[in-house]
Order: sequence, then structure tokens, then C-alpha cells
Amino acid sequence: MRAGDYGAHYAALWESLEQQSAGGKRVRPRLVWSAYRGFGGADRALATRVALSFELLHTAFLIHDDLIDRDTVRRGAPNVAGRFAERALAHGADERASAVWGETAAVLAGDLALSRAHREIAVLPVEAACREALLDILDRAVFISAAGELADVVHSLRGAAPGIEVVLATLEHKTAVYSFEAPLAAGATLAGADPESVAALSRFGRLVGVAFQITDDVLGVFGDPAVTGKSASADLREGKQTALIAHAATTDAWPSIAARFGDPTLDDDAATTLREALRDCGALDAATQLAQEHVTLARFELDAADLPHELRGELGDFAQRAMERVR
Amino acid sequence: MRAGDYGAHYAALWESLEQQSAGGKRVRPRLVWSAYRGFGGADRALATRVALSFELLHTAFLIHDDLIDRDTVRRGAPNVAGRFAERALAHGADERASAVWGETAAVLAGDLALSRAHREIAVLPVEAACREALLDILDRAVFISAAGELADVVHSLRGAAPGIEVVLATLEHKTAVYSFEAPLAAGATLAGADPESVAALSRFGRLVGVAFQITDDVLGVFGDPAVTGKSASADLREGKQTALIAHAATTDAWPSIAARFGDPTLDDDAATTLREALRDCGALDAATQLAQEHVTLARFELDAADLPHELRGELGDFAQRAMERVR
Repeated sequence: MRAGDYGAHYAALWESLEQQSAGGKRVRPRLVWSAYRGFGGADRALATRVALSFELLHTAFLIHDDLIDRDTVRRGAPNVAGRFAERALAHGADERASAVWGETAAVLAGDLALSRAHREIAVLPVEAACREALLDILDRAVFISAAGELADVVHSLRGAAPGIEVVLATLEHKTAVYSFEAPLAAGATLAGADPESVAALSRFGRLVGVAFQITDDVLGVFGDPAVTGKSASADLREGKQTALIAHAATTDAWPSIAARFGDPTLDDDAATTLREALRDCGALDAATQLAQEHVTLARFELDAADLPHELRGELGDFAQRAMERVR
Repeated sequence: MRAGDYGAHYAALWESLEQQSAGGKRVRPRLVWSAYRGFGGADRALATRVALSFELLHTAFLIHDDLIDRDTVRRGAPNVAGRFAERALAHGADERASAVWGETAAVLAGDLALSRAHREIAVLPVEAACREALLDILDRAVFISAAGELADVVHSLRGAAPGIEVVLATLEHKTAVYSFEAPLAAGATLAGADPESVAALSRFGRLVGVAFQITDDVLGVFGDPAVTGKSASADLREGKQTALIAHAATTDAWPSIAARFGDPTLDDDAATTLREALRDCGALDAATQLAQEHVTLARFELDAADLPHELRGELGDFAQRAMERVR
């Protein structure tokens, strides 16, 4: 089956799906490979197929997440919806029609990526018990990520700042499970690791994933745009509910922060003022400490488990880097 | 994993997914079962899992199709997006926020249904070669349906009436492959049918599926709403590009039909006038004949193949009913 056999638009849809998959930090493939090799796995082609499955899952979620958020840009370039809206305009569509082209492309590209993610594991040439364990990991990842995405949308529309436990649960469900826990568990399972080790890696992955995402949110406000490649005002304009905000909402500074937070017209000067208020009220320190606590707990999991020596060292370093990174 | 563990909203999402799956004609399960039993299959539980996979695929496509069309009602009741928009309003969301809740629920419910469709086949307890053949059938169905959906959206936004060959290709790709060809091919494959028979059933399914969909479109304009359960004006208001319209566009009656066709304010009297114009210009006869030709070609496929006697009789009857039905 070739996309081109079904018309130029369908070929363009697959092309934009491939472009969307390119770039990124490749966290998931690295974790699959670390866990697999750490437990003695040596078939790189096999591990690559499992890694590909989680990258495709990630691509599907990004595309559908952008669709929900009505974003047409990602990493500074048009995303699938953005590309297809442009394509529609080039084919003479009006603005409304071009938005529908874009949404259609995003729905379908996400569905195609999600289907390929399942297929990579479903046809994996390993024993049935191993394949089924991998399918369970994938199923759990999809199930929990959907719960996290729904919670995120519901909370972000609610207006009031959520408590820190809601922020942490959402980070865990929406991202940490599918991007950290599942790739580690899958790599270890593929290498034939014992269930206790898989469970320990899963707990480690969830904790480190939460630390990673807290750091992401901190960098989204306090990072250097020239290094992160992201605006340092966008999350503030958008009213993104993060650990920073959950902490700020418990302080006396909240009324003055809440008055500007989530204002889509916020200019860079006002964003700087808001950033300073978040620092002064202790939100930056609190979020940084929360990330460090998660890293510490994650390392406890590593130490408590009977993991291969090298893997333990590698993952310990990974955990520390998850929060010390600047981009 | 239980949805309720992830909050009441997520439990409600799964509930609305189940409600969306209920009802319908159950064409796909019947075709899986006919082909499976026709080739001597006797394990009803196994066939049911394959049937469930195609029903879940159908549910996923309906939900995402409604999302693309911004429909919030299906079969006279609120669909997943409609239910969730209502839920948001009940939780104090404003109109914009309730629309986002609805869209989010539709994206996620479709993704969950699609994932379960893949999983049903991926964990099927059959030999690897059989399971992989079934996965290939599913993959082809997803691949071609997405192409059909994209083509449908592109053509419906284009304004000008498409030629009959475009209408037929879209019906085949968007619906006939996943709802007719794939369930028949899967049922036969599960029963261990030879490749020639599977190929013949696939061709039969595609042809009969197109006949079924042409009839669907004819019933959408000329059917009795009390019997079909569908408005006989909605397709005309919406400007749905069907075989009727493709034929009408080749006749002298077209300018007067085109002047009202696709007018969202069309009242029932104007719809009656338009319906009569479609009948008078020969569009109803042409579409009916086209459906009959596809049924005839489909029956040729049955006769040319070396199929079990009973299966041939059953599918021959099915083909004739596909176009003689009134709902």
C-alpha cells in the first residue's frame, strides 16, 4: 500500500506525519534501549521496533494534543494541522475550509501514528508471552495517558489554580507513564528481565518522568528561550497549570499573580514582572525542590532493586540530568 | 485498570464510548461470522473477538468523523462530544469551554476505541501466521479508510460536484473496505480459507459495500424518515456529495438544483422540490442502477470463486438485500 496511490493529498498527509516525528529529544528510544541493553539484550533491530512504537505513540499524542489545544505550530514550525491548512489555502480554499482541512489531517495523522504504534508491537517476532506483556505495557500507557489528557483539559478550563497533588497526578498520567515508565518497562521486558525488576524500573520511570516534566514547566517560564527554543512567556499567557502556579496559589502573592496570569495579551515586560513575582513568592524554589525530591525517590527505587550494576549507574545519571538540564 | 480510578470524568468518557458502540446494524460482526462459519469455523468466542475489533474500529471512525464534521448528535441522540459538552455545562463551564470538553472527549474516545480494535487482534490466541494476516487486514482497513475520509473532506469543501468516479472511489475507500471487505476477509482468514477465496470475498465485499453505501445515500434523500430514522432533508442541506448529485451535475437540471443544494436554510418544502428535481432528471434511476450493477458484479465474484455452497447462497442474498433495503 502506498499513500500516493490514494492521491496527492494523502501522500502529503504521510509526509507531514513523518516531519512531525522528526526532531525531539528521543527520550523514549533511549530509555527502551538502556533498559534492554542493561538486561543483556543485544538485538538492536528488535529494540528499535519497540522504541519506534513508543515514538509513534508520542507523535500521535502530540498531534491530537495540538488538535485539542487548536495549536497549528510546534517547535516553531507549522504542525500537521498547520501544514494542511496552508495546503488548503494554496488549493484555493477559504479560511474556514482550510481550518477543516487542518483538523481533518490532524485527526487522521494521529490515528495513523497510533495504529502504527500498535502494529509495531503486534507483529514483533518474539514469543507470545513477551509480546503480550509488551502489548499490556502499551495498553496501560494509552489508557493512562488518555486519563491524564482529559484531566489536564478539564483542569485548565476550570479557572481556579489546582492543588499540587492534581498537578503531579496530571504530569504522571499525561506524560510520565507513556514517556518514561512504559519505555523502560518495555525494554526490560523485551530483554527478559524478571517481574520485580520491571516493576522497579516502572516506579523509577514514573518518578523521574514527573521530575522531568516539573523541570520542563520551570524551563517554560525561567528558561533561556535561546537555549530551550521555546518562548518564556507562552505558558504564562496561556495560563498553564504547573507546579509553579500550584505553589504560588498558596502564597500571599497569589492575588497579584492571578490578576495577570493567563492573560493572552500579556507583553514581555509584564511577563518579566510575573516571572519575578513567581520567584519572589518561592514558587521557583518549591518547584525545583519538588523535582529534586522526585529524583531522590527515583534513585531510592534504583538502589532498592536488584538491577544490573551498569544500568543502575546509567539510570541514576539520567535521573539527575532530568532536572539539571537547561533545555 | 479501571477508568474510575482516574476520576469521574474518565469513567464518564468510557461510558459514553460504550453508549456510542451500542445500536447500529451490526453489519461487520455479521460478515465476520458468515465468512468464518462459511469456511467451517466453529469457535464462536474467537470470531466474536475479531468481530469486536471491527466494531471498535467503526466506533472510532464514527467518533472521529463526527469530530471532523463538528456534529454533536448521531442517531438522534447526543454523541460522545455532545454528551461531554452537556457534562461540562452541568459542571459550570461556559459555552466555549464546553465545546473544548466535547472535542477532547471525542479525540480521546476515538483513540481508545482504535487502540482496543488493534489490541483485540494483537492478543488473539491463534497461530502467528493467522494473527499476522488478520493484522494486515486491519492495517489495510485503517490505511485506506483514512485516505477515503481525507478525500471526502477535501471534495465536500471544494464546492463543485465531483464526478461519479470520485464519488465511487470515496465510498469504497471510506467505508466499503473497512466495513465489508475487511470483516469478510478476516472471518475467512480466521477459518483458514485459501488465499484465492479470501481475495474473492474481498472483491465481493468492496463491490457490495459500494452498493450498500449508494443505497444509503439514496435512502438519505428518498427514504421514509419514519423508517430510516434519518431526516430526508439533512443530506440536501449539508450538500452531501453522492452518486445522485454526481449524476444530476451531468444533466440540464443542474443549474436549478445547484442553486438550492447545500443551502443550510433549506426548508422541507424546498427539500421536496429538490427531491423531485433529482427524480425528474434521472438521478434516482441512475443511482439505483449503479447500485444494482455493483450487486451484479459482486455476485459474479461469488460465482467465479470456488466458495462453499452455503456461504455463496448467504452472501448472494446479503448482496441483494444491501440494495433492496428500506432502512
